[in-house]
Amino acid sequence: MDKVAFIGLGAMGYPMAAHLARRFPTLVWNRTFQKALKHQEAFGSRAVPLEEVAEAGVIFTCLPTTKEVAQVAERLLPHLRPGTHWVDATSGDPEESRRLAQRLREKGVVYLDAPVSGGTAGAEKGTLTVMLGGPEEAVERVRPYLAYAKKVVHVGPVGAGHAVKAINNALLAVNLWAAGEGLVALVAQGVSAERALEVINASSGRSNATENLIPERVLTRAFPKTFALGLLVKDLGIAMRVLEGEKAPSPLLRLTREVYEMAKRELGPEADHVEALKLLERWANAEIR
Amino acid sequence: MDKVAFIGLGAMGYPMAAHLARRFPTLVWNRTFQKALKHQEAFGSRAVPLEEVAEAGVIFTCLPTTKEVAQVAERLLPHLRPGTHWVDATSGDPEESRRLAQRLREKGVVYLDAPVSGGTAGAEKGTLTVMLGGPEEAVERVRPYLAYAKKVVHVGPVGAGHAVKAINNALLAVNLWAAGEGLVALVAQGVSAERALEVINASSGRSNATENLIPERVLTRAFPKTFALGLLVKDLGIAMRVLEGEKAPSPLLRLTREVYEMAKRELGPEADHVEALKLLERWANAEIR
Amino acid sequence: MDKVAFIGLGAMGYPMAAHLARRFPTLVWNRTFQKALKHQEAFGSRAVPLEEVAEAGVIFTCLPTTKEVAQVAERLLPHLRPGTHWVDATSGDPEESRRLAQRLREKGVVYLDAPVSGGTAGAEKGTLTVMLGGPEEAVERVRPYLAYAKKVVHVGPVGAGHAVKAINNALLAVNLWAAGEGLVALVAQGVSAERALEVINASSGRSNATENLIPERVLTRAFPKTFALGLLVKDLGIAMRVLEGEKAPSPLLRLTREVYEMAKRELGPEADHVEALKLLERWANAEIR
Amino acid sequence: MDKVAFIGLGAMGYPMAAHLARRFPTLVWNRTFQKALKHQEAFGSRAVPLEEVAEAGVIFTCLPTTKEVAQVAERLLPHLRPGTHWVDATSGDPEESRRLAQRLREKGVVYLDAPVSGGTAGAEKGTLTVMLGGPEEAVERVRPYLAYAKKVVHVGPVGAGHAVKAINNALLAVNLWAAGEGLVALVAQGVSAERALEVINASSGRSNATENLIPERVLTRAFPKTFALGLLVKDLGIAMRVLEGEKAPSPLLRLTREVYEMAKRELGPEADHVEALKLLERWANAEIR
Repeated sequence: MDKVAFIGLGAMGYPMAAHLARRFPTLVWNRTFQKALKHQEAFGSRAVPLEEVAEAGVIFTCLPTTKEVAQVAERLLPHLRPGTHWVDATSGDPEESRRLAQRLREKGVVYLDAPVSGGTAGAEKGTLTVMLGGPEEAVERVRPYLAYAKKVVHVGPVGAGHAVKAINNALLAVNLWAAGEGLVALVAQGVSAERALEVINASSGRSNATENLIPERVLTRAFPKTFALGLLVKDLGIAMRVLEGEKAPSPLLRLTREVYEMAKRELGPEADHVEALKLLERWANAEIR
Repeated sequence: MDKVAFIGLGAMGYPMAAHLARRFPTLVWNRTFQKALKHQEAFGSRAVPLEEVAEAGVIFTCLPTTKEVAQVAERLLPHLRPGTHWVDATSGDPEESRRLAQRLREKGVVYLDAPVSGGTAGAEKGTLTVMLGGPEEAVERVRPYLAYAKKVVHVGPVGAGHAVKAINNALLAVNLWAAGEGLVALVAQGVSAERALEVINASSGRSNATENLIPERVLTRAFPKTFALGLLVKDLGIAMRVLEGEKAPSPLLRLTREVYEMAKRELGPEADHVEALKLLERWANAEIR
Repeated sequence: MDKVAFIGLGAMGYPMAAHLARRFPTLVWNRTFQKALKHQEAFGSRAVPLEEVAEAGVIFTCLPTTKEVAQVAERLLPHLRPGTHWVDATSGDPEESRRLAQRLREKGVVYLDAPVSGGTAGAEKGTLTVMLGGPEEAVERVRPYLAYAKKVVHVGPVGAGHAVKAINNALLAVNLWAAGEGLVALVAQGVSAERALEVINASSGRSNATENLIPERVLTRAFPKTFALGLLVKDLGIAMRVLEGEKAPSPLLRLTREVYEMAKRELGPEADHVEALKLLERWANAEIR
Repeated sequence: MDKVAFIGLGAMGYPMAAHLARRFPTLVWNRTFQKALKHQEAFGSRAVPLEEVAEAGVIFTCLPTTKEVAQVAERLLPHLRPGTHWVDATSGDPEESRRLAQRLREKGVVYLDAPVSGGTAGAEKGTLTVMLGGPEEAVERVRPYLAYAKKVVHVGPVGAGHAVKAINNALLAVNLWAAGEGLVALVAQGVSAERALEVINASSGRSNATENLIPERVLTRAFPKTFALGLLVKDLGIAMRVLEGEKAPSPLLRLTREVYEMAKRELGPEADHVEALKLLERWANAEIR
């Protein structure tokens, strides 16, 4: 098996890299290098200076946006070897990724976008879903290394993984907000949100939002911080550019971005994405319960 | 056990009344009386003139809208006996139902709104979900007679059942349309809809629309006629009045009615509700596949 | 000339009734009766108990909503004489007005809806625009008495006046908010709002909002209280019912109600309607100047 | 006075260049060169090969989009002389113009965006409004040459002209469509559109759409082809990018683009922009008259 490398040991990347380290010789790098050293100690990976990452046959990145990935790529470029495969788990931008893939191709490096879903819990358990964008043969080349995944789907050419991820998150956003609108109206008319959800979840209106997010996080008033509102709004921005590529009328998804943008500005980007429903509650002067 | 009666032997009512007839002495009435006679022959119910329906202890209705229920109630009013319970399975209007309940109360009749979900398949198998609106004791009184139901949820006072049903259908509508917007954009960029759905259904954006409706009806191009677009638009109208009761801002659900109204006008009210996505396909000049 | 009567001496009604009193024998009534006495003293009208109002040949009302008009009508009903004409200057609801007209017709009284535009300034100067709904001959009967009007337009049958007024105010609302969205974006990119308006007002995007409201009230930061946000939202509600009558897709006007509903909830119903733009400024973190 | 040059003799550019030719030595170039020769004959301009355009002190462009301007600029680049001023009357994209300005600056050429409003009628009469983006001193340098303008407003730095033009057209679009929504609803309820407009145009809801476009083009059913729907949709796309720069919530303008995108797909890009109201008429099954 080849040596692998993981760049970006954040809330997602840290446990993802741990799964790699259990099965392959794994180099790790992080901007705050202390975190790389901690990873080395905990999981037997090897913390290295950035340029040594180029020794790996498969390089993974998991960074905030494609911009950071492109910056790291520029620094690594002089060191990269032809035939290297780059698996970018960032929730990135399709268009920018296509530009990055082009840039890396000049050095003989094959770029795949490979965003994940499943959250930090899935990252820790190694049960993430990976949506891969890139050429077929590259997908087969890297598939054995996706040790953090339970499900791997090759969705199309470079950029397709990012596009699917962005649309998935846009659907999460619209399903969640619309359920919030409906529930505040019901609650204000004397219906118990719990009972309403019991019915909806046995009926045609159900979604991940009504089955999981709202019962576990809103009814309980727990609102755990698992996925920041600011990040969801960033993903909605990417989704808008995916729609823009085609420019077909998309009134509901477009308006979805607008309302989350409002929520972000009223509640702050650090709020959890599910807290967006608090703005609906404020407007309705009613609590979803 | 009391005698029961069922008014309205349409696509839903016919099999629902059959489940009653298997367990209780059951009177049936239908505007096209031939259908009542056919039901009598098939299930051992008894087809009777409308006024005889008043002999039953529990009267069920399943009609197109609350307007028809109110018309039948006016005709029955002189015959109704105090203590009768009226279970209205119509997908009706909460406000109009509250007026009807008031009117029936004058005769000592207890009205409950009891719309169902599960479609004709659920009606035939007797696995419908019933959402009940009405007083607690009335709910307990009628519960033993809901022979067509797998799940019965008491959601609140009179009108609450209709309100929950309308919001459920509005969520179905928004989840379906938004998924359509996202998928046409992905398809137009070279992503396979089937692969995208495989990912979404393992991720946070999933809904009944992405898990069932689109794979079974859109990807297959089958578009079976199970629930007419015109009826969904009617239910969206009811949902708008539920929102109106509270008047809180509900931009996404409001816009959802508008786009389905467009689809109804472009595709005709007889089209199936899932065919609404054909309008998105037309606009995008792309097929979800 | 007949005796006339004026009911409702608010910010609009007080100066409107003054124009009547200058030209006709004028009875006045107001819930807070002190105001009627003050009007009598100032303009030579005659403050009377409500039932005496029925002596007039033409009765004017100018009240907050149709609900108050209907309440006054019920109290007056026993005293009203056949042939009386009722001119309702309230910004009311078309459907409720049609019911009220029907009720008054039973007593031989002819109802016309006659909402006005022009604001308190126009009321004082007697330069209001009146939009009349009712039968042609009734319009001709009351026309000579509209002493507060500069322009009188017969727009259709009963209710038509209210409908046109509501749509006018909805257009005001959408033109104003959209201009606000555009201007905050321009300002945030270094464009002077004043220069932008200079161009827009010489071009195709101009409206009353860009020509008058924004230059006079927003650029100056004066935001005078002339028309409460809560009242505009009420009128938007009436406009929604006008749209509902036809049910055709109306995405932009529907969404307009939603955003003003948000503004009302964030800024309070007492804010001036133009202050709605402050919510856009807050979201954009930029001031229109 | 310097020699000037005009590139792009389309419906707008042809008469604009004629105003220049009457006052200054004027070089003209057009892709279909026959048109340049025709201009030379008619107005005494001089039709030249593209590279000779570089002899002029002030170069004007009026092309479909910024993309064509940038292409022409690339071809001219080797010939351009320091100190030349470039006045771009195209309805272009602010961001792309900023890149183009940067590119031209390398050769010492000063770029100003200078889109116009007033239509072909204004171009012929020389009464256009020019909105200028660029440095103050450059504005003063070119101002004497704007022979086709009645009003010149310096709105901000490079790109500001394009941004203001795009927002102006977005306001035109939203005002027009919203008026259409309101009018079809009124008409369907028995109100005459002409009377409704008479009131609105004396009231707060008036705009260029209600004062000019709808009376002259819709009520008359004339729908003259003066500004193609496809071009308005292009400008709405630019407006969306202006909003995107700031990313503040802009629900009404965003939804405006979506509905015009629908209209473009249903009616074709060659339809006049005012014909968009025909889609509303089709949905409402009512004609605005």
